[in-house]
Amino acid sequence: MPVAHADLARGDRWDRVRRRMSDLRVDALLLSLGADLPWLSGYQAMPLERLTMLVLPAEGEATLVVPRLEEPRVRPLPDLFAIRAWEESEDPTEIVAGLVGSRPSLAVSDRTWATFILALQARLPDARWHMASTVTAPLRAVKDREEVAILRRAGAAADRVAEALVGGHIPLVGRTEADVARDLADRLVAEGHQQVNFAIVGSGPNSASPHHDPGGRRIRASEAVVCDFGGTLDGYCSDITRTVFTGEPPTRFRHLYGVLEAAQAAAVDAAVVGTPCEDVDGVARRAITEAGYGAHLVHRTGHGIGMEEHEDPYLVGGNCEALAPGHAFSVEPGIYVSRRWGARIEDIVVATDAGPERLNSVDHGLAVVEA
Amino acid sequence: MPVAHADLARGDRWDRVRRRMSDLRVDALLLSLGADLPWLSGYQAMPLERLTMLVLPAEGEATLVVPRLEEPRVRPLPDLFAIRAWEESEDPTEIVAGLVGSRPSLAVSDRTWATFILALQARLPDARWHMASTVTAPLRAVKDREEVAILRRAGAAADRVAEALVGGHIPLVGRTEADVARDLADRLVAEGHQQVNFAIVGSGPNSASPHHDPGGRRIRASEAVVCDFGGTLDGYCSDITRTVFTGEPPTRFRHLYGVLEAAQAAAVDAAVVGTPCEDVDGVARRAITEAGYGAHLVHRTGHGIGMEEHEDPYLVGGNCEALAPGHAFSVEPGIYVSRRWGARIEDIVVATDAGPERLNSVDHGLAVVEA
Repeated sequence: MPVAHADLARGDRWDRVRRRMSDLRVDALLLSLGADLPWLSGYQAMPLERLTMLVLPAEGEATLVVPRLEEPRVRPLPDLFAIRAWEESEDPTEIVAGLVGSRPSLAVSDRTWATFILALQARLPDARWHMASTVTAPLRAVKDREEVAILRRAGAAADRVAEALVGGHIPLVGRTEADVARDLADRLVAEGHQQVNFAIVGSGPNSASPHHDPGGRRIRASEAVVCDFGGTLDGYCSDITRTVFTGEPPTRFRHLYGVLEAAQAAAVDAAVVGTPCEDVDGVARRAITEAGYGAHLVHRTGHGIGMEEHEDPYLVGGNCEALAPGHAFSVEPGIYVSRRWGARIEDIVVATDAGPERLNSVDHGLAVVEA
Repeated sequence: MPVAHADLARGDRWDRVRRRMSDLRVDALLLSLGADLPWLSGYQAMPLERLTMLVLPAEGEATLVVPRLEEPRVRPLPDLFAIRAWEESEDPTEIVAGLVGSRPSLAVSDRTWATFILALQARLPDARWHMASTVTAPLRAVKDREEVAILRRAGAAADRVAEALVGGHIPLVGRTEADVARDLADRLVAEGHQQVNFAIVGSGPNSASPHHDPGGRRIRASEAVVCDFGGTLDGYCSDITRTVFTGEPPTRFRHLYGVLEAAQAAAVDAAVVGTPCEDVDGVARRAITEAGYGAHLVHRTGHGIGMEEHEDPYLVGGNCEALAPGHAFSVEPGIYVSRRWGARIEDIVVATDAGPERLNSVDHGLAVVEA
């Protein structure tokens, strides 16, 4: 992302955040771990025991409280915030409390560690605490043109890895799940990702475990293998799932997969601007349930994606928020027959005024790879 | 770690945790992200928006609340805890609150996300909240024989990478910091780590930034290069720093490095059982300050290490806890001359009744690598 654009976007983001703080009567945002801080400042806090926190009051100067030893990492944006580096002998929660003062309504990054919340609550006993996402999530969920362009590049990079998988260019049979996961991870990096976020490889009975932790199990012939992987490219995430079969699939698996493929396609088609998120989930769910696999559905249809691998909007029952242009999310129904086999198909989709735009285009049919 | 031993150790850990809960009058532990949960249960929560939380009452049955789609990941330990899988349509904080009931004093994992704490506080308005580390940290800080054995293996694996670095077998000049960082990371895996936690490469002026994020800067001749890297091997962390110079170092850098080398060695020697942690820090600090570099010290001398990369005990001013046999920690003073150059030397050390045991033995002298 060109720096000039990023800075421009960030200035605009600060204005929108402050307007929303005013609407919601939030007096200060306290941003630590998670994507709110880099989305606004370009700086990402280290996930360690030394507190980094941007104190952003609705009115007045913002200050980034940062450990002295990490101060050289910060690229100063003097128009946007001041820097207060703290020494090892200081307590950073005392500094944050001082900057907050008597402001009563505070919103803190969703991923801030409990240890810091509890310390801040002790220092600010009269404050009311909210999640920063109530302010930031609806803003971050709508991606601008530049952000969609990066998501598109991340999706294309993940597609090249998935092409190799479904094309049979990644050996499976005889290798461990962990080996294949490492292969997928290496390929994500080779295709342009700076970071790998996960690489799930679930084979045989493990394909029925949606978040399976790839381990020492060796993949055999005549098995389903669910591969779900993604990383971060220029600050934005990819996430794709394809299921392959090692050898000729049994009729029952072909049937299951056919139901899933149709359900996923129908859910993508349903993801048009104005549709409530839960309705997209409902489309996939209904198709799968009507085909008799309702008992084997164990997760929602999708999650938003952007600087974080999972963020708003969530395609889940109960979320009646309507899709808006610029919403980016996964569409990933799955069918899991416990201890036997499972399948999942996932694409990233962006809602646009011209209809849903798929960022992944790797063939969705059941890929049969050589056993 | 053999499963049999791990399970045995875990049963013993549960007893010790419950005794300490009783001493501290904590009615329930609520464990989510961080190492407390895997230390007790062998299961690590996924760092995502779906809550995983072990509710461990001081008396009565413990329950692991886990998303339905992640239930197949859990290896049940029926004697230790029950499993309550929650569906996408449920709110897991309601389930946790139900399990907690009217117990007033709760201790929650230090790294639990704010979003979950705030939701639980709303559901349990009369509870008093503490950090789980007040219960677990002193127990986890003392490693048993098996844990020290794994830390030793992790240290030896990191040593083999550092040997390649100081031996000049990793090309530096002309490559970017990010390239060298990736090389170090790949080597950590090749030497047996399952996961890379970080690989800092700071060259030239960036060597003065202790937590530098390795980037596109190309390393040149006649520069200091600080390399600090570590990963996780069989559940336990390695962490080592060596500083090399690309070509013949100037006299002033040699002097700075000599002071640092002596300070680090003195601090390791001072890390004997019974010594307060802050005194070890003081030994390094005094040596560096007396040599005139006091203004260029920006961080504490060390941190504990185990299942987490940073944990108790911290070697920092103000920590008067005495070192005990089984304490494992880094000793890593550094000297940083802003925008010019810097150096750091780090070993992992275990306090034993026979004196400090270094887990890293790579040469500590200033390594001059070919320019």
